[in-house]
Amino acid sequence: MNTIDNIIKLALFEDSGHGDITTESILLESFSGTGVIVAKESFVLAGVEIAKKVFKLLDPLCEPYSSYSDGDCVKDGEVFFKVKGDLLALLKGERVALNFMQRLSGIATLTRSFIEELSFPDVRLTDTRKTTPGLRGLEKEAVRAGGAFNHRMSLYDGILIKDNHIAVAGSIKNAVKAVRNRTSHLMKIEVETTTLDEVSQALDAGAEVIMLDNMNYEQMTRAVKFINGKAVVEASGNVSISTLNKIAATGVDVISCGALTHQARSVDMSMRINTE
Amino acid sequence: MNTIDNIIKLALFEDSGHGDITTESILLESFSGTGVIVAKESFVLAGVEIAKKVFKLLDPLCEPYSSYSDGDCVKDGEVFFKVKGDLLALLKGERVALNFMQRLSGIATLTRSFIEELSFPDVRLTDTRKTTPGLRGLEKEAVRAGGAFNHRMSLYDGILIKDNHIAVAGSIKNAVKAVRNRTSHLMKIEVETTTLDEVSQALDAGAEVIMLDNMNYEQMTRAVKFINGKAVVEASGNVSISTLNKIAATGVDVISCGALTHQARSVDMSMRINTE
Amino acid sequence: MNTIDNIIKLALFEDSGHGDITTESILLESFSGTGVIVAKESFVLAGVEIAKKVFKLLDPLCEPYSSYSDGDCVKDGEVFFKVKGDLLALLKGERVALNFMQRLSGIATLTRSFIEELSFPDVRLTDTRKTTPGLRGLEKEAVRAGGAFNHRMSLYDGILIKDNHIAVAGSIKNAVKAVRNRTSHLMKIEVETTTLDEVSQALDAGAEVIMLDNMNYEQMTRAVKFINGKAVVEASGNVSISTLNKIAATGVDVISCGALTHQARSVDMSMRINTE
Amino acid sequence: MNTIDNIIKLALFEDSGHGDITTESILLESFSGTGVIVAKESFVLAGVEIAKKVFKLLDPLCEPYSSYSDGDCVKDGEVFFKVKGDLLALLKGERVALNFMQRLSGIATLTRSFIEELSFPDVRLTDTRKTTPGLRGLEKEAVRAGGAFNHRMSLYDGILIKDNHIAVAGSIKNAVKAVRNRTSHLMKIEVETTTLDEVSQALDAGAEVIMLDNMNYEQMTRAVKFINGKAVVEASGNVSISTLNKIAATGVDVISCGALTHQARSVDMSMRINTE
Amino acid sequence: MNTIDNIIKLALFEDSGHGDITTESILLESFSGTGVIVAKESFVLAGVEIAKKVFKLLDPLCEPYSSYSDGDCVKDGEVFFKVKGDLLALLKGERVALNFMQRLSGIATLTRSFIEELSFPDVRLTDTRKTTPGLRGLEKEAVRAGGAFNHRMSLYDGILIKDNHIAVAGSIKNAVKAVRNRTSHLMKIEVETTTLDEVSQALDAGAEVIMLDNMNYEQMTRAVKFINGKAVVEASGNVSISTLNKIAATGVDVISCGALTHQARSVDMSMRINTE
Amino acid sequence: MNTIDNIIKLALFEDSGHGDITTESILLESFSGTGVIVAKESFVLAGVEIAKKVFKLLDPLCEPYSSYSDGDCVKDGEVFFKVKGDLLALLKGERVALNFMQRLSGIATLTRSFIEELSFPDVRLTDTRKTTPGLRGLEKEAVRAGGAFNHRMSLYDGILIKDNHIAVAGSIKNAVKAVRNRTSHLMKIEVETTTLDEVSQALDAGAEVIMLDNMNYEQMTRAVKFINGKAVVEASGNVSISTLNKIAATGVDVISCGALTHQARSVDMSMRINTE
Repeated sequence: MNTIDNIIKLALFEDSGHGDITTESILLESFSGTGVIVAKESFVLAGVEIAKKVFKLLDPLCEPYSSYSDGDCVKDGEVFFKVKGDLLALLKGERVALNFMQRLSGIATLTRSFIEELSFPDVRLTDTRKTTPGLRGLEKEAVRAGGAFNHRMSLYDGILIKDNHIAVAGSIKNAVKAVRNRTSHLMKIEVETTTLDEVSQALDAGAEVIMLDNMNYEQMTRAVKFINGKAVVEASGNVSISTLNKIAATGVDVISCGALTHQARSVDMSMRINTE
Repeated sequence: MNTIDNIIKLALFEDSGHGDITTESILLESFSGTGVIVAKESFVLAGVEIAKKVFKLLDPLCEPYSSYSDGDCVKDGEVFFKVKGDLLALLKGERVALNFMQRLSGIATLTRSFIEELSFPDVRLTDTRKTTPGLRGLEKEAVRAGGAFNHRMSLYDGILIKDNHIAVAGSIKNAVKAVRNRTSHLMKIEVETTTLDEVSQALDAGAEVIMLDNMNYEQMTRAVKFINGKAVVEASGNVSISTLNKIAATGVDVISCGALTHQARSVDMSMRINTE
Repeated sequence: MNTIDNIIKLALFEDSGHGDITTESILLESFSGTGVIVAKESFVLAGVEIAKKVFKLLDPLCEPYSSYSDGDCVKDGEVFFKVKGDLLALLKGERVALNFMQRLSGIATLTRSFIEELSFPDVRLTDTRKTTPGLRGLEKEAVRAGGAFNHRMSLYDGILIKDNHIAVAGSIKNAVKAVRNRTSHLMKIEVETTTLDEVSQALDAGAEVIMLDNMNYEQMTRAVKFINGKAVVEASGNVSISTLNKIAATGVDVISCGALTHQARSVDMSMRINTE
Repeated sequence: MNTIDNIIKLALFEDSGHGDITTESILLESFSGTGVIVAKESFVLAGVEIAKKVFKLLDPLCEPYSSYSDGDCVKDGEVFFKVKGDLLALLKGERVALNFMQRLSGIATLTRSFIEELSFPDVRLTDTRKTTPGLRGLEKEAVRAGGAFNHRMSLYDGILIKDNHIAVAGSIKNAVKAVRNRTSHLMKIEVETTTLDEVSQALDAGAEVIMLDNMNYEQMTRAVKFINGKAVVEASGNVSISTLNKIAATGVDVISCGALTHQARSVDMSMRINTE
Repeated sequence: MNTIDNIIKLALFEDSGHGDITTESILLESFSGTGVIVAKESFVLAGVEIAKKVFKLLDPLCEPYSSYSDGDCVKDGEVFFKVKGDLLALLKGERVALNFMQRLSGIATLTRSFIEELSFPDVRLTDTRKTTPGLRGLEKEAVRAGGAFNHRMSLYDGILIKDNHIAVAGSIKNAVKAVRNRTSHLMKIEVETTTLDEVSQALDAGAEVIMLDNMNYEQMTRAVKFINGKAVVEASGNVSISTLNKIAATGVDVISCGALTHQARSVDMSMRINTE
Repeated sequence: MNTIDNIIKLALFEDSGHGDITTESILLESFSGTGVIVAKESFVLAGVEIAKKVFKLLDPLCEPYSSYSDGDCVKDGEVFFKVKGDLLALLKGERVALNFMQRLSGIATLTRSFIEELSFPDVRLTDTRKTTPGLRGLEKEAVRAGGAFNHRMSLYDGILIKDNHIAVAGSIKNAVKAVRNRTSHLMKIEVETTTLDEVSQALDAGAEVIMLDNMNYEQMTRAVKFINGKAVVEASGNVSISTLNKIAATGVDVISCGALTHQARSVDMSMRINTE
């Protein structure tokens, strides 16, 4: 009923679906324990609700708690998460909960560094579909925790007309028209362009968002001027922390950046469990 | 029936489970196309069979092909993957296939750099369970493609007795005995230790593998000497490319390293699709 | 991997998941047969590809064929579908294929009558979310086969701010702003209004689509005039074939109509199977 | 574990499986609310337990309540259902719960009109397998709520030998014998007949139920006389509210009628939600 | 879509869902092989189509073949099954296919010994619901392969009123009436009885099948006489190969026997695989 | 998320997934009841936790209780299990819970007889993969309840090199080396041998466990002597209660025995339910 639950269950299954043979050999009766997760570097937190869900799925009666929320900064050495519950559940959930939070906090932390670098408050920095298979929804939440925005979630909740679509349709105009007839009036149509001529065609065809794909700064500046507020303008391609402000300076409205997710690395944290 | 198929299906579902509204608005009849994937930096390839499966699942009649196998080096600019088939399937599979290969090749590439650094050919460098949720099996294959070895896959196919187990069992001896009774004679028992005294107890208890957890070089050297070939010795904790050879020099048999998977970044590649 | 396949499989399961005890008692070896489906009244066809899928799922080697496509008119008495294949598959698929096509063609036929009545070619008639549980995607396809358009598919691919949202957010302005921050730049924001004052607030807040909910003709006329092209205007509530043109005459852009799906009845058709 | 839960989950998934982007953008903390469902025409209620399940699945702590049961008459304007709970759950459940109850109450209402028309209290009016794909079980419950009876649920819980079976078996006698051997002694065998000669053969073969398919009143009268209580007699084909009593007058025991389900339309009701 | 496929997939998953680590370490390229299954004792075969499905699921291109069908006798030493295909698939399928056929043939063999013992050809010997969890459908097929008949498959395709039902309903009469109203006219109603008085009540209530539960021979004889053909009579309880004919001699129509499934043991067979 | 839950759900589904038509016709409101399970012969109990789960899945509020644990002896006539809860749940769970416990206790009882026969306390008696499809995990727990040990659970958690692997690899040495590279250092490698020469090769190749397959007592004695403690020695093939001690006397460490699972028969027990 829910895609996020699916990935958590898959993650638990791959780690302990057939049991934890070490622990189950030793814990012949039920024990309770307390686990605390401590930061081993400073980072922007993401995934804290997922970590709670991991433990709740394994032990519905356990009590995970954190005074932090996604998007908060956690300092090196801080204990930021506690969970009290069935010891077997803590031991099974430990690695899975950490794996989720380490990856997601890595994305939030990298995203935050981009946001802090960006000097143009009206420019919307977004992610892309370059996410880890199965973790799309979670990684996009982590991007928001870091302070950036989301692009479309998938191929079905946003329209983006690319060169292959134009080739099949015969022209930008035909492509926009075909899509308009098939989709609801609640969706904007975006067209990917690489030249000013394509920008002009997209505008004529009624595109509401125009992507400038891999254009240089000068081309982008001219395109923005040409469009002149008649469509939202998105820059895409070769976006890094060092090019970010130069791109923003061309006047575009949106900058989409795959690096937010696919260049992120896991942050370091660990869990200590005390038996009672 | 198969955990790897599950994650591929989940990845396809999250991206186009409800359709690709742009493409489906335009492709009212069936078109065929050809896609080629080109490397945009040099890397060690991993995930090539997964990419084939992605396209095969979307179009059972398509023909994915690569002259490269997992573990091969691909040079910047090379076309290393081709697929001919239904255009809708190519457009739906593009991002998912890339997301898999980019992440997995990132792991293989990072692993290869560790392997090339390691000067002790008899030392076995392994991964850990610090993998992306849902991708455990695939990331461990990528580690092997990079030239390293796998540690246990999950909590049910390898035994590792940690401090919590020992606390509950009362002693290392009790813990080893309990596990021995519950598990098959095909499994070795590993005990995590942090002091020489614990090493000694583990050896007496009949542990077949002893993990030296977060010990310094001197402690590790003394432990290896003490164990003296009576058990396999594994070093764990703070393993990086700069500490790798110093750890190996202590005489341990195995070095397990979470960085292989959780410090890897996606490598850059892109797909071009031609309509026919 | 696909929501439409899910409902087909569920439908087959509920009818013959544990087998067809009558047929399986008699068909101890494999027989082939030919089935033809004949219209028992005139209608607009929808669901023909689903019917093919039903038979293909039961017998991958069968050959379903129709010279008609969704949206075509079928006359009373015409044979419009043939399928040749395994007799057991034909007998199992018969009722399920008919149940799908009868319901979906009923929707297409009713929708077509609305479209033929509508004298304002620029007004977009759409469906709503008032669809049969499980059949949302198929029924929305049937609406398009009938000649109308789709509103959003679900709660996640279109934004509609209603009174409850406004109450929680404190004002229309707050609500629009909150949604804008959370969603991609590819989505338009629609606000439901019941008075001119709300229309004015929605416009000020930057709503791109404004729904006039259950307004009378005069209110709608005044709202359209007030909005004056600055947002798309959608009329909703009490839309029937007799009010359709009067609503359209107020100048609205979109009319959404639940009756297209929930007042439709199954059309009559039957299948004859010949054993070979 | 349960087919009815499956369709509810599928219905919730298709509407909000990936979230409710409007509500989730605004409800950043938890709110509670109260919803009431009001009848907008008079009808026979069905599906009230399903509606409760919808809300319970979304918020296990919510409190759905109705003083009405399936089969009760609800008057235009009456509030017949209340639910208090998490606001997000109410907003997600609203459309799905209504869609179920509107369709099912439509069936119960139409069925009730048939039952009230029928002047022969000993004749059993039943539904058929002409139900909405995925909703078989629920629609058959709605038929009972309307006061009629159920025919078999599917191809595996009732035996009906049709012309194709007879053709393959060689004769009615052979077909009955084959089925008798394969099925339990708890099932009656029904044979479909179109002529008096077939009726005679079915009786000789030991059929316990004989279907008179599309016979006229005179044929039916003669068949009933011929059978003379040795088998249950079922009339099938062209059953409408205007032919109902004429068919019953021929003396048949059972009348099966597809119209109960496939000619029903959704009844009108709506939900109001108050935020607290 | 099919319960039998589910158990086969579950069986394959539990044995090799995460792979066959031995074989996959060695078979780095594709090999083909041929497997033959040989009987290591004489038995009545059952499950041969399941075994074919096991291999087909693992290698859709493999060619399983047997000149025997379920119900045939296989002699000790005979090769009765061959399969040619992908070596990895043969090695993964071997144990699962054997486990199915060994258990199912064990049931068929035991059932055949009961059938050969039974001297009353008109008495119907049936199984019960005492089957291995998950294998119900397959074990009931094996019973038929052995020559006996099936009782109901489950709680939903046959009616059996027991003491608890009667207690709740207040009387046998009430219980029969309640069930009659709720179920289709294609189902017979069976009532479990332990005394002649209950038999009499069941007959008066219109029960079509009467179960004599754990009665002695004399009681059964009197009950049969009392019923006098007005209902089908089933004997149940303490049925073994030594009591079988004595029970049959009392004149009952049906004897149900749990031993057919729960006293069966696996027959012996093994598979030899040749690499090519 | 859990393979054991899967088989329980499958078992419940096959028995009452579409409902219990008898009970549901009669229990129009909720009743509570108490069930007790009584032994009808003496046996070693297994599956008691599974039986609890069956009832808990059907009625989360019910209270199953037993003063016995798996491995305890239950005497003929003893009441060893009670459950109080919703009557419908008791009636639905009865047969499924019994079917699990009867089969599993049958295995535990047979295993216990082997263990009591075995005069060599240091020899480890194990099961094999010859288990009922779908019940692998449960049957292996029952074997432990009986007092024996488990061999590997499946093809992925234990390594066993057989003749086909050796044929493909070219030699025992090559096969062991290939497997060593592919698997973790926590797994022992077992090689199946049929001659002393193969034993010698396996030992040279570094096999940690050597299986003597179908050797006679003399061959086994010589092999054990030859191996001389350098590897664990497992005897396999033709193990019965009468050969058990003769095999153990040869000096082997492990005896694996398929009969523990595939020659077991269900023990007799029954459930009485009282309505309240």
